[in-house]
Amino acid sequence: MGEFELIEKYFGRAPRRAAVGVGDDCALLDVEPGMRLAVSSDLLVEGRHFLSTVAPERLGHKALAVNLSDLAACGAEPLAFTLAISMPRVDESFLAGFSRGLFALAERHGIELVGGDTTAGPLSICITVFGQVPPEQALLRSGARPGHDLWVSGRLGDARLALEVFRGTATLPGSAFEEVRRSMECPEPRVPLGIALRGLATSAIDLSDGLAGDLGHVMRLSGVGATVDYDAIPRSTVLAMQSAELQRECLLAGGDDYELLFTAPPSRRDAVLAAAAEAQVAVTCIGGIDAEDELRFVDGQGRPMDVAARGFDHFA
Amino acid sequence: MGEFELIEKYFGRAPRRAAVGVGDDCALLDVEPGMRLAVSSDLLVEGRHFLSTVAPERLGHKALAVNLSDLAACGAEPLAFTLAISMPRVDESFLAGFSRGLFALAERHGIELVGGDTTAGPLSICITVFGQVPPEQALLRSGARPGHDLWVSGRLGDARLALEVFRGTATLPGSAFEEVRRSMECPEPRVPLGIALRGLATSAIDLSDGLAGDLGHVMRLSGVGATVDYDAIPRSTVLAMQSAELQRECLLAGGDDYELLFTAPPSRRDAVLAAAAEAQVAVTCIGGIDAEDELRFVDGQGRPMDVAARGFDHFA
Repeated sequence: MGEFELIEKYFGRAPRRAAVGVGDDCALLDVEPGMRLAVSSDLLVEGRHFLSTVAPERLGHKALAVNLSDLAACGAEPLAFTLAISMPRVDESFLAGFSRGLFALAERHGIELVGGDTTAGPLSICITVFGQVPPEQALLRSGARPGHDLWVSGRLGDARLALEVFRGTATLPGSAFEEVRRSMECPEPRVPLGIALRGLATSAIDLSDGLAGDLGHVMRLSGVGATVDYDAIPRSTVLAMQSAELQRECLLAGGDDYELLFTAPPSRRDAVLAAAAEAQVAVTCIGGIDAEDELRFVDGQGRPMDVAARGFDHFA
Repeated sequence: MGEFELIEKYFGRAPRRAAVGVGDDCALLDVEPGMRLAVSSDLLVEGRHFLSTVAPERLGHKALAVNLSDLAACGAEPLAFTLAISMPRVDESFLAGFSRGLFALAERHGIELVGGDTTAGPLSICITVFGQVPPEQALLRSGARPGHDLWVSGRLGDARLALEVFRGTATLPGSAFEEVRRSMECPEPRVPLGIALRGLATSAIDLSDGLAGDLGHVMRLSGVGATVDYDAIPRSTVLAMQSAELQRECLLAGGDDYELLFTAPPSRRDAVLAAAAEAQVAVTCIGGIDAEDELRFVDGQGRPMDVAARGFDHFA
């Protein structure tokens, strides 16, 4: 099967929202009047962002999910995406599963594939997503102010725990492993939450490199510090049963959480909880923003904790 | 050097046109009112789209050029681009050259890098470009009609000839090799020509997989055939000195030309030539569109030629 047949068979869809979709030199897309275009691009490389053991359907899901997560962190409504993929050879069983997982998530978010590229090479996947957001309501990393609450959606650390099992540094019973593996392979992008937080959250970021590192980006861009109540960080029962050291690694330096970390004024607590209920996702207040440019951890009793943690660095 | 330092050092630029550029979850970009967004994405893999011998500066140029070429083929004005790159390790000398070539071309087209991704992995580069075009004036592949002239910009085949020298199936004296190598490594995207052809060309495509294959896309999407005057296909003096067989391969099945192939009514010949003069690029009429769904080649005297050629297929 050649390149063009492959594209047609696995990735061809009639354009809906796009004026011109797959098959011309460019896709042509309309952004609603008064809306700003939001764009994000992620590259997933085998062995680095996913393991060769992942089911193709889950890989298709995850490749799009991590991009949608960036739109969520901006409060943007997804519109469309492009896909560029390189593969060592045409593997129809891989492509069938991959495209199934990809389009299942795309359809849940009402977005379409509008273009891309397919080539031979090491397995890697580059997706660029497009969304739209009202100019004044985009959630940026730069808006956190001293006194604001620090919130996080969902639960953290399970994806990293699954990775440690794959690495052989942790062991879990089968059902617990399946649960954390699902967190690693099938993250749910928090798009409805991001949209619900428009005009409410003062800053937001999606957690892809670990809480400590990603919070560091918000601190740097907002010019603030933060205090995190370590015991308040939401975690699964499975993770809560692991050693203190492993929990800390997974919660703070984890990566691949794809939950939203955001700030909001304390006066808006009820509105935040209402937005989360509307988006059908749990949110937890895990601390607050400080004026001093420093990241501090305290335990449930407010006692300072000495926690050395840094984000995931792809070249470290 | 870590991932974030690397991005800042080599790819950090203050946003100009973009409301938010590199450094947040998404870039935020405005499309002018009444304009349609044009999007294209290309993935370049070492050994497939470029050789390890290419100078990093030229690779930076080419990675963006092939994407701008897609915008040119739509008649779109470039706005911005994202870059996702995977590299085996942080190679500062590579990054310095690559980013220099990339930004030199970007600045010539007045566009900025608005986001992307950097990760460890086999060397591959995924660029997504954004442009804007008035909705009714986008150049599509589907508008060719019987009787229209078939035009091509620049000269074809030199990039493929250079590849054949690298492959050892052709030899050239040093200066001739440098000339064709430049065509392969430093293609010039025909952006000004694409814009000048708005409302004039009835269809357009950029030649990346060879004349025969790319013309086939236009034929298929327009539901037409074409007759090409083989002798009229513009070629360099260097290529014209090669064997008949090699010339045919380079001209028809070449790939990497990044010239525009377009159609226009014969009544607009003067306008096409004026548009090309405005864009400062040569254009040549190489045949015409037929009603029958077939691709035919004739020689300078109009005699049918038996030319078997097909486009470059990344999985063939």
